[in-house]
Amino acid sequence: MAGSTLGKNIVISTWGESHGKALGVVIDGFPAGMELDERDIQKFLDRRKPGTSSATTSRKEDDLVEILSGVFEGRTTGTPISLMVKNTSQRSADYSEIAGYYRPGHADYGFDEKYGFRDYRGGGRSSGRETIGRVASGALSSKLLSQMGIEVCAYTKSIGDVEIDPSKFDKSAIYSTPTAMPDADADKRAMELIQKCREDMDSIGGVIECRITGVPAGIGEPVFDKLDARLSQAIMSVGAVKAVEFGDGTKVARYRGSENNDEFEMLADGSVSKKTNHSGGVLGGMSDGSDIIVRAYIKPTPSIARTQSTINKSGENIDINIKGRHDPVVVPRAVVVIESMCALTLLDLMISNMSSRADYLIGFYK
Amino acid sequence: MAGSTLGKNIVISTWGESHGKALGVVIDGFPAGMELDERDIQKFLDRRKPGTSSATTSRKEDDLVEILSGVFEGRTTGTPISLMVKNTSQRSADYSEIAGYYRPGHADYGFDEKYGFRDYRGGGRSSGRETIGRVASGALSSKLLSQMGIEVCAYTKSIGDVEIDPSKFDKSAIYSTPTAMPDADADKRAMELIQKCREDMDSIGGVIECRITGVPAGIGEPVFDKLDARLSQAIMSVGAVKAVEFGDGTKVARYRGSENNDEFEMLADGSVSKKTNHSGGVLGGMSDGSDIIVRAYIKPTPSIARTQSTINKSGENIDINIKGRHDPVVVPRAVVVIESMCALTLLDLMISNMSSRADYLIGFYK
Amino acid sequence: MAGSTLGKNIVISTWGESHGKALGVVIDGFPAGMELDERDIQKFLDRRKPGTSSATTSRKEDDLVEILSGVFEGRTTGTPISLMVKNTSQRSADYSEIAGYYRPGHADYGFDEKYGFRDYRGGGRSSGRETIGRVASGALSSKLLSQMGIEVCAYTKSIGDVEIDPSKFDKSAIYSTPTAMPDADADKRAMELIQKCREDMDSIGGVIECRITGVPAGIGEPVFDKLDARLSQAIMSVGAVKAVEFGDGTKVARYRGSENNDEFEMLADGSVSKKTNHSGGVLGGMSDGSDIIVRAYIKPTPSIARTQSTINKSGENIDINIKGRHDPVVVPRAVVVIESMCALTLLDLMISNMSSRADYLIGFYK
Amino acid sequence: MAGSTLGKNIVISTWGESHGKALGVVIDGFPAGMELDERDIQKFLDRRKPGTSSATTSRKEDDLVEILSGVFEGRTTGTPISLMVKNTSQRSADYSEIAGYYRPGHADYGFDEKYGFRDYRGGGRSSGRETIGRVASGALSSKLLSQMGIEVCAYTKSIGDVEIDPSKFDKSAIYSTPTAMPDADADKRAMELIQKCREDMDSIGGVIECRITGVPAGIGEPVFDKLDARLSQAIMSVGAVKAVEFGDGTKVARYRGSENNDEFEMLADGSVSKKTNHSGGVLGGMSDGSDIIVRAYIKPTPSIARTQSTINKSGENIDINIKGRHDPVVVPRAVVVIESMCALTLLDLMISNMSSRADYLIGFYK
Repeated sequence: MAGSTLGKNIVISTWGESHGKALGVVIDGFPAGMELDERDIQKFLDRRKPGTSSATTSRKEDDLVEILSGVFEGRTTGTPISLMVKNTSQRSADYSEIAGYYRPGHADYGFDEKYGFRDYRGGGRSSGRETIGRVASGALSSKLLSQMGIEVCAYTKSIGDVEIDPSKFDKSAIYSTPTAMPDADADKRAMELIQKCREDMDSIGGVIECRITGVPAGIGEPVFDKLDARLSQAIMSVGAVKAVEFGDGTKVARYRGSENNDEFEMLADGSVSKKTNHSGGVLGGMSDGSDIIVRAYIKPTPSIARTQSTINKSGENIDINIKGRHDPVVVPRAVVVIESMCALTLLDLMISNMSSRADYLIGFYK
Repeated sequence: MAGSTLGKNIVISTWGESHGKALGVVIDGFPAGMELDERDIQKFLDRRKPGTSSATTSRKEDDLVEILSGVFEGRTTGTPISLMVKNTSQRSADYSEIAGYYRPGHADYGFDEKYGFRDYRGGGRSSGRETIGRVASGALSSKLLSQMGIEVCAYTKSIGDVEIDPSKFDKSAIYSTPTAMPDADADKRAMELIQKCREDMDSIGGVIECRITGVPAGIGEPVFDKLDARLSQAIMSVGAVKAVEFGDGTKVARYRGSENNDEFEMLADGSVSKKTNHSGGVLGGMSDGSDIIVRAYIKPTPSIARTQSTINKSGENIDINIKGRHDPVVVPRAVVVIESMCALTLLDLMISNMSSRADYLIGFYK
Repeated sequence: MAGSTLGKNIVISTWGESHGKALGVVIDGFPAGMELDERDIQKFLDRRKPGTSSATTSRKEDDLVEILSGVFEGRTTGTPISLMVKNTSQRSADYSEIAGYYRPGHADYGFDEKYGFRDYRGGGRSSGRETIGRVASGALSSKLLSQMGIEVCAYTKSIGDVEIDPSKFDKSAIYSTPTAMPDADADKRAMELIQKCREDMDSIGGVIECRITGVPAGIGEPVFDKLDARLSQAIMSVGAVKAVEFGDGTKVARYRGSENNDEFEMLADGSVSKKTNHSGGVLGGMSDGSDIIVRAYIKPTPSIARTQSTINKSGENIDINIKGRHDPVVVPRAVVVIESMCALTLLDLMISNMSSRADYLIGFYK
Repeated sequence: MAGSTLGKNIVISTWGESHGKALGVVIDGFPAGMELDERDIQKFLDRRKPGTSSATTSRKEDDLVEILSGVFEGRTTGTPISLMVKNTSQRSADYSEIAGYYRPGHADYGFDEKYGFRDYRGGGRSSGRETIGRVASGALSSKLLSQMGIEVCAYTKSIGDVEIDPSKFDKSAIYSTPTAMPDADADKRAMELIQKCREDMDSIGGVIECRITGVPAGIGEPVFDKLDARLSQAIMSVGAVKAVEFGDGTKVARYRGSENNDEFEMLADGSVSKKTNHSGGVLGGMSDGSDIIVRAYIKPTPSIARTQSTINKSGENIDINIKGRHDPVVVPRAVVVIESMCALTLLDLMISNMSSRADYLIGFYK
């Protein structure tokens, strides 16, 4: 079945493998008339690029995006936008050995069971490079959302036990620190932890938080296309995510109702507000007007240098040492992926909401 | 947009409000030839029925299901199965007051912002009674899955700070304890906590765990219809769920890769196994042959008896006291809902997987 | 697969068999706030009711619709609208014989091959009664469209070789003549032909035309969800339809371009018009501002009283005489079904069009 | 809305404009393990290439396809197959004039009304070059169908009033005659007619027939995803098609039931057959085991050299002369497009049918 296709109004189809000719996405249903050029997208793709820091692999990837269709005279045309990034620096030779066995923590075994064989080069379709199409789609979605006064902003909340201090939140640091943390102090300590993991031939997990501001109340479609339900699918579909939570998340299981309920109040300016935001901006599956806060819990990179046991395709128990350079942490590079999935999903549901009332529809065609 | 419709192969459309004439579901695409009668479904619906215990409301609900279509001579026909439960014991009078204000922690405000008005009787479409259609669909799905050797089993893992002891796991207790805990001792302590909450005019949250056994490897469709992604949408769409996690879940954010990776091994009987199951049975978005383990974190019931502040439709700050009897905890009744969403989603993806290989398709038509 | 579910924004799921307990539909995604009561729907259902005239079967069918959900205080709520019609006058005894063989021109053989067995009573799911859900959905759609100045009007264009005279078009006759022809003279001749067919123990086909007025230009989504493409699926999905055409339809295959092209012109009032309408109101898959004209070619009723050859389930060649009273022509009763499918499909695409431009979306949320 | 995306199990997203950088398609959900290389696809694309004959434009188009993803070691991987054809020989200069006005018979006006502006170069997204993605998808589908013993074969049935003689049917002629007629005599006469149209600065329509052999009974999903309904959408979505019919098509409207019914019979070899095939292989929306026969009626090319009236964007009535070389008939090049849409749609529904019975599903996972 078609598992690389997502969305109801704006439908994206991502494609490409780590070591194929190229990767990309077709974005179908994006509204016409928005100014768009490659730089809008490149800016996002560059955020998932491995740097020279010790937090990420030193593999060189240019990832230059080309717009192949759907843009004319600098604006989106309303017809499918095809975006492509050519693979340039991949060398399949590095990966020949893994063809014969199943790496722990990876999708190798599932792919073989499902499809009968797999493109084993660099993880094939299950590589992190698969996210290029997601991020490109997110770039467009974020641009349109920003024109509606909505900001989608993801960042690293923690790596291992190193957590940011919310009181030191510095948005600019997200884009300048190697960890994508909005707190330079935490970044420094996290980099030390990452270096330690590298020395230990090991890896480490972390948490990404995404905050969405400016969303009007009522976005999300009861009962299955709730805002939090659709965001959960979108976020959990990103490789390495093992948990998703909104607002106070897992903590609510121990709360009393009197602690967890957010009381509504009218502000002096006549706007509706909530005194607290335990709900993370979602009530009954619809936005409640407060900031939407969602967190993704990311597992440690499964490719580690130390010796591991596993099985090969012949059904033998073997020991392996995975070669090549691997990020000891995927969190920093996944930040823009989570942000993109949130932007894309929110935009799709904001379109869905346009026909929620008969008088909206009648008014539109007057 | 059509938010009450879910699924790709088997598509369900649920309908109905708390105090309308009836609630139900149309299940379209369910395979033909499975034996089915009302008892198969009633058994599931009865598990979400409020009991006489202090854990749940004493409101009388019969919730008798009728099969209106799609079954002939005791077997499913392959055409839409329409199921209905009539509302019998609702009294709208109880709810007249809440029409004018927005209850904290509820969907009231979102509904009014989205649709311009709402059916305020008993929460209308956002009532827990909405889950009747989900549970009825789950009953059918579970029955078919069991004929494939697959068991989907959800239970209460914790209420507040009272947690089950896995070493005392007793499956039968799920269906006999008022809390749906598989541990009679924990149940007893949880009931005390619930009674305390009731006395405090307060409520409490908890955790539901679902374990799925017998699923072959390779179920789930990369990259957006991953097994964990689709289960996350399905589970998060259930009212009051604020977090979803698989396997070790949120904990993986602090793990090292060497801790988190599950090593594959060949068992003596020639089957593939994993030495551990931190992954919760899902790798790369596909089942890995181990038990699938997923958890839903449930918030405390937002309807509490103590005085709360909120706003009314005229934009005034007011104090309210919500009347009526409300469960101090929704967890026990939500267990079968989570189980149902898991069964339904898994079955849908198992159908999707049937066409994963060209030779499967060719073989099918030979 | 879920074949009884249709639509992208407004999704309907129809259900029910000829001799089951009831038939109905769930309409999910219908905009909130439209006034609606049973009479709006009953009016449409009554148009598909068999009369006492010789054109249709004399089987008594009340077909009273009940609104089970989605309407509160006389208006649609935005949540699923569940509609049901109970089966009252069916007697399964009439149909016991056909269980064992495959009627020529019917779906019997296909159903058995596909599903392994079938509900043979009155055709089961393939009965004309299946259209109840379609017509109920069409009633709602037409009502909302009419509030946007759009009229969807279907009528019988011909029965056998008896054709209406367009110069005598009388809209009121559609609802008063037994043939649903907008021409009382043609109706009279058609009734004579039908009576002749009945005497011959035979049946006859015909053509239904639907004209949609008031649709703005640009409705329809290139390239697969074109207005004519989606209408074709919707119309061809109605039982007994064997051809669909727009505007000059099949005739264009013999036209020159200079004959077929419709020249645009500006009218004195500043509006855009076309000098001719060979296109039937659709160009490039989008409405062009002219009336949309579509025709459905309907086959003669396959159930005829005269002896026919066929096979039985044991694989024997046999002769059969189909018992019971059958309409010698299905055209008159199918008129409202075609009209309903057109209304539903058009409304769905008008919603799709709301997000065609970025500035529409931005303006909506300002 | 996403109108360039089609299918339920295999989902295609086509993209590209006549004069953009490239055109292509993403095919998501195609089963793994089928041998595939560029030649399989090129063979189909070459059939839509304009020749040097007077039937088609002399514009040079190479249309070389590249497989960008989804194929590894010569076989499909089960993940998205991305196909691209670069535009090489387009010169935008030719089309600058048409930017300002609306060509009769074209989508220009609809595009501007819908999206606010359009890529006017060569028709942009509404160009016949849009079909490249369709044909590439059809090539894959046909290859897989042929491995199941199913042949999908389309050809030109008529151009203007020149019709093929079925008794002279010569399949090889489809691929060698400039008209794609399976009858060399008719081809010759049709070419004379086309030459006459060219001299008259005019164009001509025609009919394409597609015959599908080897389909088992029961394919198609009642009631909206019927085989004929889905094929109708797929075929009508091809530019210039104005009517679609199955079997005896429009003629059935004048038939008696006794003429139109196809009687079933058991053949000596124990197989089920029909004595006639008025139904065109579809009964009740499912295949009936006979050849599926569908026809598309194609309008004459709207771009003609003679002077026409129309309006410009400023709202003035003007006279225009469309420049450039245009096919006087689109029928021959559309043959492979219709064939492709049929193959793709049939394959999708054959996958849908795999889960029609519970015992199929249970058996699959044993």
